[in-house]
Amino acid sequence: MRLYDIKSPEQIKNLSIGQLNDLAKDIRSFLIENISKTGGHLSSNLGIVETTIAMHYVFNAPKDKLIFDVGHQSYVHKILTGRSTLFPTLRQMGGLSGFQKRNESEYDCWEAGHSSTSLSAALGFAVARDLQKEDYNVVSLIGDGAIASGMSMEALNDIGAQQRKMIIIFNDNNMSISKNHGGMEKRITSIRSSRIYRNVKHDVKGHIRKNKVGTETLKFMTFVKDKLKQGLIDAPLFNEFNLDYMGPVNGHDIGELIKVFEAAKEHDGPIVVHVLTKKGKGYSFAEQDTVGKWHGVSPFNISTGKSLMKLPPNEKSWSQIISDALIDLAKQYEGIVAITPAMAQGSKLLKFAKLFPDRFFDCGIAEQHAVTMACGMAAGGLHPFVSIYSSFLQRAYDQINHDLARMNLPVVIGIDRAGLVGDDGETHQGVFDISMLRSIPNLILSQPKNAKEAYDLMYTAFLSKRPFCIRYPRGQAYVPDSISMQQIEIGTWTQSVTGNHPKAIVISYGPDVERIEHTARENDLSVIVVNARFFKPLDEVMLQDLFSRKLPIFVFETDVMIGGLSSAILEFKNQIDPSIEIIGIHDHFVEHGSIRSLRKKEHIDLETLFHEIEGQE
Amino acid sequence: MRLYDIKSPEQIKNLSIGQLNDLAKDIRSFLIENISKTGGHLSSNLGIVETTIAMHYVFNAPKDKLIFDVGHQSYVHKILTGRSTLFPTLRQMGGLSGFQKRNESEYDCWEAGHSSTSLSAALGFAVARDLQKEDYNVVSLIGDGAIASGMSMEALNDIGAQQRKMIIIFNDNNMSISKNHGGMEKRITSIRSSRIYRNVKHDVKGHIRKNKVGTETLKFMTFVKDKLKQGLIDAPLFNEFNLDYMGPVNGHDIGELIKVFEAAKEHDGPIVVHVLTKKGKGYSFAEQDTVGKWHGVSPFNISTGKSLMKLPPNEKSWSQIISDALIDLAKQYEGIVAITPAMAQGSKLLKFAKLFPDRFFDCGIAEQHAVTMACGMAAGGLHPFVSIYSSFLQRAYDQINHDLARMNLPVVIGIDRAGLVGDDGETHQGVFDISMLRSIPNLILSQPKNAKEAYDLMYTAFLSKRPFCIRYPRGQAYVPDSISMQQIEIGTWTQSVTGNHPKAIVISYGPDVERIEHTARENDLSVIVVNARFFKPLDEVMLQDLFSRKLPIFVFETDVMIGGLSSAILEFKNQIDPSIEIIGIHDHFVEHGSIRSLRKKEHIDLETLFHEIEGQE
Repeated sequence: MRLYDIKSPEQIKNLSIGQLNDLAKDIRSFLIENISKTGGHLSSNLGIVETTIAMHYVFNAPKDKLIFDVGHQSYVHKILTGRSTLFPTLRQMGGLSGFQKRNESEYDCWEAGHSSTSLSAALGFAVARDLQKEDYNVVSLIGDGAIASGMSMEALNDIGAQQRKMIIIFNDNNMSISKNHGGMEKRITSIRSSRIYRNVKHDVKGHIRKNKVGTETLKFMTFVKDKLKQGLIDAPLFNEFNLDYMGPVNGHDIGELIKVFEAAKEHDGPIVVHVLTKKGKGYSFAEQDTVGKWHGVSPFNISTGKSLMKLPPNEKSWSQIISDALIDLAKQYEGIVAITPAMAQGSKLLKFAKLFPDRFFDCGIAEQHAVTMACGMAAGGLHPFVSIYSSFLQRAYDQINHDLARMNLPVVIGIDRAGLVGDDGETHQGVFDISMLRSIPNLILSQPKNAKEAYDLMYTAFLSKRPFCIRYPRGQAYVPDSISMQQIEIGTWTQSVTGNHPKAIVISYGPDVERIEHTARENDLSVIVVNARFFKPLDEVMLQDLFSRKLPIFVFETDVMIGGLSSAILEFKNQIDPSIEIIGIHDHFVEHGSIRSLRKKEHIDLETLFHEIEGQE
Repeated sequence: MRLYDIKSPEQIKNLSIGQLNDLAKDIRSFLIENISKTGGHLSSNLGIVETTIAMHYVFNAPKDKLIFDVGHQSYVHKILTGRSTLFPTLRQMGGLSGFQKRNESEYDCWEAGHSSTSLSAALGFAVARDLQKEDYNVVSLIGDGAIASGMSMEALNDIGAQQRKMIIIFNDNNMSISKNHGGMEKRITSIRSSRIYRNVKHDVKGHIRKNKVGTETLKFMTFVKDKLKQGLIDAPLFNEFNLDYMGPVNGHDIGELIKVFEAAKEHDGPIVVHVLTKKGKGYSFAEQDTVGKWHGVSPFNISTGKSLMKLPPNEKSWSQIISDALIDLAKQYEGIVAITPAMAQGSKLLKFAKLFPDRFFDCGIAEQHAVTMACGMAAGGLHPFVSIYSSFLQRAYDQINHDLARMNLPVVIGIDRAGLVGDDGETHQGVFDISMLRSIPNLILSQPKNAKEAYDLMYTAFLSKRPFCIRYPRGQAYVPDSISMQQIEIGTWTQSVTGNHPKAIVISYGPDVERIEHTARENDLSVIVVNARFFKPLDEVMLQDLFSRKLPIFVFETDVMIGGLSSAILEFKNQIDPSIEIIGIHDHFVEHGSIRSLRKKEHIDLETLFHEIEGQE
């Protein structure tokens, strides 16, 4: 069967195992060929070709709900659901999304770009099915990195309690985005090495459907039972959550996968099917990758494995710039440690890890824990740097607010991939962090315009001994041969003028500052360009001066406007020259006390309001 | 030893077990006596009197770090560290905090009002200790509700990986704030019923210090070893995280606790000590409580157990009003289900649970899972209501953004305890949610001014089939005898005028609207009072009309100003009459595509900027 002919997964249901294996081979070539041109997520998809084929062979989507944890591993699913011809448009504007997408196909019942949502989603579907007396299977596929995240474990705990029929395919490739180092991992490793076994409470033998693989499944299960008698039972993690378990199964053996999935399908209650896969399977460069370089890739040369994206000389990625600055600082200050939630490769922290192995902490996909552990370290006298992608920092909002900012601890947060990230789309755009963080007291929030300022801000951040966020975008910047670090006064902006008679003020931040200066000069346009390198605190002195110039002011921000830099400027403008009188809680944490006494103390009581209204007369 | 004489935990270290038991008794009476007057957290503190005494007996605070997960269980710790005389001021403005508080005592090394931060914090301290070559113990006390939260499990996973010396006292009272229903719980229940056993990898016999309990400890450990030989070993959850384990131990037997803690102290690497306690121990009303009524209490009569706080007739708590409306709607619409992360009692959902047991879900302290499971249910055709305290909703920021709003699913979020909550203080004030949520696309964010409007908003929310948040404060409101529900046009505000010649406009929300009207009338002040019942979307038509009146406008908000309602109004005002020209991302999710193409599409490219600057001429 030709891959391009597949319009629906129904078409693969009558293929023989041999034909399915041929299809798997074709899909692998197709993925490598296409992703080498468009870029995209390679390793994870190569790893689950057979698993996805077996899923669609055994289950009946779209009636059955197939949920791929972090939708970036849904490429094979997209091919099998008639979307192969769209792959040349992958991740391009208007083209195929790199994730499951509900408005793209009826086969996509769920969307996610962030890890570890699939189990909660699956349980939600299972509840909906049961309450509405519907009859379908809910299947989620989740990797060993994602399953160790807190959100997954909350879901496992609830799934174990509710005992609804659902199938969790645990895709164990022994490698999360970066290497997974958790305690669970050690336990799972010991399971991996055991032979196939099955440990279920409910005997499903009587329930096996008499379909074409029914007999095979029965045979398989008898085999399993024999093994069980031979004492090959283990008690893996999942049992602790009151979940039944089958596995581990070779995730590249379609025949075996089909049998196990058929058995799981007949099982009452939740069951975990443990599938062992090889990430990057079928492409040697990706197979040999131990750090996640082949997780998400730019276009590359298939035969050499080399990226086709060349950084201009003297340019480095922003992640690299920040990490280089961190290393320089860590050499001077022993208290500096680095923490990443499974993004050592993406955040360019591998060199730090090599130089300072004792001071480097990859805690797996655990943004919440990463931030609060950093707070504990800071309370204990260290000076942690936590690197998190803007979009993933959303997972740690409470930890930033309740633990970091409220206790006012010296932790530096590197907000990587801030602003538009492009290809990954909706789920990854790092455009919310300014609005999300700006209302949190004690926090400093900044962004450098260039590499030199990145170094200065890093230096300033560690000297400040305060909760200090530095955001930086995807992409790269020019790096001079040597950079000296200077301390910046917190909350100060800079400005420059192009030409002699400025006719406007442009306030911006990040790499756009120099781009605006450059373009203005090119166009012989005289403007004042302001580098708003602190979103919080604002440079109120400069702002007052700018307001007094009676020039039109433009705020150019590349993040969401609501609650962003422009909003901060409007708030300040109204503060010094009120068009609206505002009574509300100022920028600090409010202590305990009765509500009545606190309202009085915070001047948000009616007495204050009416006093102000009367004063207006 | 008199309880008031304790200035430092050093003083209890020479007491006999009998004297310590007397002290425990005194502390219990003291707690009941004091909390009956001030209100506060009763049950949890009564449950850990002996455990806390044993902790301070065995460990040397402040050098050793004692971390109480959710600081509200630190009352006994406060008594033992010389703060007993301050208890009459508990939770009052300027008085003793109801939580651990760093600026209150050197014995408080960590602060938390939100659950499940203690393990991450403890690991952070342990790392700091090891890297700085210091020598102290890190001990965290965590309950069975908090340990099942995702954040705790992320930490357990990392603790198991890092294998640093630390002690986790697992306070198992078989009852989280409301009943804990997780799969783990079932597993732990089976452990509870087993006899004392110990399962450690490292033999610590050789390391036992020859202190005064040393011999006793050795004896105890020999006993444990015998039991171990007798086959009483189990493999609890903690082993799955690669953590050593001791227990379960009777948490009300001081002698036993001291022995176990001494043994744990000598253990290399992390160890979990499983302590069985009775919540509310020593006060019969609290002991018999199965739903959490005695978790946090108002002043009460000790002999009758009755609260001294009386609601005025015809008044109900806001939680009750919302839950009553939910029940009315759930009777009509079968698709409505209710989800709470362990707050069934606080959110007044017990009646719903009784009426619709199949449609009620208490998922434990798991805000992330609660919201995303609701999204799964909604995608599956149900219409979930999720009730979460404002301050705890911070834990689910990403799930609200990435799962709920981005997929634009029909889930109603009840944001309970919004605004100032008073006594609980800094960690619980629900004053950030408006600023936190306002920049998230697709979301509707509202607050009713009274009970009738609460019903109307609930009705509107379920009809809307959109992500819809309704916030409501702590406290109560008048409820008329019968309430009919009317649909409200989303984004519309209402206004009223007191007197005949208004001289100001006051924009407010929630219960303050009617208070302002009332006070204005009382003072013969003529004002227009606007009920801004939607923070998002704003009533732009009304706002334009209000701006045109040329009256002074006051915004009275009782939440943080930054990014709040006033900020939204300033943004809109600038939009229709710009004092600053703003270029930025509008209120929607940005799809995938190259950054260059997206900037063009979103009109946040330099071409747009310079076009606008030139247009200004």
